[in-house]
Amino acid sequence: IDTKLPKVGTTIFSVMSQLAMEHKAVNLGQGFPDFEPPQPLRDAITRAMGEGRNQYAPGIGLPSLREQIALKTERMYGRKISADSEVTVTSGATEALFAAIAAVVRAGDEVIVFDPAYDSYEPAIELQGARAVHIPLVAPTFAVDWQRVRDAVTPRTRMILINSPHNPTGAVLSSADLEELADIVRDTEIVVLSDEVYEHIVYDGAQHESVLRHPELAERSFVVSSFGKTYHCTGWKLGYAVAPKALSAEFRKVHQYLTFCTFHPAQVAFAEFMASTLEHYLELPAFYQAKRDRFRDLIKPSRLKLLDVPGGYFQLVDYSAISQQDDIAFSEWLVKEGGVAAIPLTPFYDVAPGTHLLRLCFAKSDATMEAAAERLCKL
Amino acid sequence: IDTKLPKVGTTIFSVMSQLAMEHKAVNLGQGFPDFEPPQPLRDAITRAMGEGRNQYAPGIGLPSLREQIALKTERMYGRKISADSEVTVTSGATEALFAAIAAVVRAGDEVIVFDPAYDSYEPAIELQGARAVHIPLVAPTFAVDWQRVRDAVTPRTRMILINSPHNPTGAVLSSADLEELADIVRDTEIVVLSDEVYEHIVYDGAQHESVLRHPELAERSFVVSSFGKTYHCTGWKLGYAVAPKALSAEFRKVHQYLTFCTFHPAQVAFAEFMASTLEHYLELPAFYQAKRDRFRDLIKPSRLKLLDVPGGYFQLVDYSAISQQDDIAFSEWLVKEGGVAAIPLTPFYDVAPGTHLLRLCFAKSDATMEAAAERLCKL
Ligand SMILES: CSCCC(=O)C(=O)O
Ligand SMILES: CSCCC(=O)C(=O)O
Repeated sequence: IDTKLPKVGTTIFSVMSQLAMEHKAVNLGQGFPDFEPPQPLRDAITRAMGEGRNQYAPGIGLPSLREQIALKTERMYGRKISADSEVTVTSGATEALFAAIAAVVRAGDEVIVFDPAYDSYEPAIELQGARAVHIPLVAPTFAVDWQRVRDAVTPRTRMILINSPHNPTGAVLSSADLEELADIVRDTEIVVLSDEVYEHIVYDGAQHESVLRHPELAERSFVVSSFGKTYHCTGWKLGYAVAPKALSAEFRKVHQYLTFCTFHPAQVAFAEFMASTLEHYLELPAFYQAKRDRFRDLIKPSRLKLLDVPGGYFQLVDYSAISQQDDIAFSEWLVKEGGVAAIPLTPFYDVAPGTHLLRLCFAKSDATMEAAAERLCKL
Repeated sequence: IDTKLPKVGTTIFSVMSQLAMEHKAVNLGQGFPDFEPPQPLRDAITRAMGEGRNQYAPGIGLPSLREQIALKTERMYGRKISADSEVTVTSGATEALFAAIAAVVRAGDEVIVFDPAYDSYEPAIELQGARAVHIPLVAPTFAVDWQRVRDAVTPRTRMILINSPHNPTGAVLSSADLEELADIVRDTEIVVLSDEVYEHIVYDGAQHESVLRHPELAERSFVVSSFGKTYHCTGWKLGYAVAPKALSAEFRKVHQYLTFCTFHPAQVAFAEFMASTLEHYLELPAFYQAKRDRFRDLIKPSRLKLLDVPGGYFQLVDYSAISQQDDIAFSEWLVKEGGVAAIPLTPFYDVAPGTHLLRLCFAKSDATMEAAAERLCKL
């Protein structure tokens, strides 16, 4: 069979989780916590199932859940949005990203993405018959070079895809970055797709510069987020997209034929939980900052060089003092021989820069971090 | 915004469910049961959440669940398949249909669909830049005219999409139909997509003629099914696709970037439940036959003419003795004034035949059927 996606194999996250299992390695690869979502959320799912919430939810999401998302958006970013026409609940952020791309990107279009880029972006773009235009972020801080973006814009540019806090690097965009972006897209037809799944995980007192804080950008953006990352339940596959009415209408046309709706009892549970508990996401930066700092302390004695982590729950490390192998080979060696699963950066690049970097997930219990650190310090 | 899907509005199922709610009508529109999934399944989800199954499942589905699907396939259809390489778990049959189409259909291709056709097929085809070629089923039994299919095949035909038991008509394909299909696709590159979400709901002792019973067809087919329809939990959004290794590989490339994986605790629950309980699906034909027969008895005194129902959980009725309005207008009147939500057939057609048919869902409790029948008998 002639493949439509010649560049795509099994996603690196699945490959590494599978290897981690086979080799009983400590899994710091795929991005998920090894601790549990709040007990009240789990109880609320059980209750919802008992109360007969087991058939289709409204395709666009439960009204009470969309309402909570709208309230959160106003509280966090000062933007009033319509739960009715501007919020759509999805089966995880992955579906939201795909639906946003499928809704507006056409054959022949160009979409600007920043490398290293999350691996689902380009296949979603290619399935539209469109082309990803890759712009490398500038090491060591992985900042955007906006002049390069200006130079890359053509009449075919339909979308610019940003991601802050950034996976895999942890870089965050500043309000000045958003100004640059606004300046570039002004008076064009370019739509912004902003992947903000780590919106509540920023460090050192920084504020997350959501596109939703920027009225001009918000008017032409899809903003995607994830309950899985915020509430420690990546396996529940709940996410959402916020976009102005006209964009949301196109998004919903696609979404209704992609998955129609998502697991109904969890929507009931999140609507209840968010109505009663603001603390969860307000406390998330401190919660993860403690983990980040603990993890950095634990691996400081190793020969790995730690890069800065302004946001997200991944630590980039430079292993060049240990090995000159490329990152795919080294991560394979590490999971098999070193007992730790990490994610290489090469799969996130169109043209990999040949750096010696791995991504380690620190959304882990102390015990897991300690077990990993013990192994990493032996390298 | 210039839409990519000019023919698409909000799906008729959402529109009708919304109207049913607003007008407090008895909802026989959107296809879902108004009774509950088995209690052990709900308990197993709660247990799985308590046991920490809250992070990503393997993208292709939990191995134990894929194993159960493979066992069921062998038991029901005598076909041995590989749980490893031929089964993929999805977020409902809707995602499976979309992923199968996106995996193999390209810009410029043609896909043969039979009208009336489930409304997600054509948008999924159009999003690939391909074209749906509509062949009307032949009333009153809604049989396939295979000569018309032969005549419609061109070098651009990439896929033939079949659906048995058929939604919305309840028609079922016979083994002779599958022979005709096999004869048409033999020595071509045409892939079959077989929507079999009502596979366990066939009546009067008939056996479901799954494509999986037909080795030659199975070698070039995606077969899609739904836990929601079989286990009374449409809101849990669990489905799957079975396809030979090479097709499954392409399917999985798309699936991993559509939703990655689906609600993990439900996968644990179904793997357990299916391992211990065959009776559920073996008893489903009798369970629904009792409902079908009861519903037909209840509305026999009405002025609606009942069409035959060989499979599925929908009753088609001809309302021409009551009104000459078109089916969209009549179903709007019926939900607002008559107190019953039904689904008109026009949205399932490329060129509607102007018949006076509505679809009524009888996957309902006695009380619901009685309340609906009382209203329908007054028309
Ligand atoms: C959907 S699997 C990948 C999870 C993730 O966000 C990551 O590891 O980067
Ligand atoms: C996904 S909503 C539609 C449900 C259904 O299968 C139907 O009513 O035909």
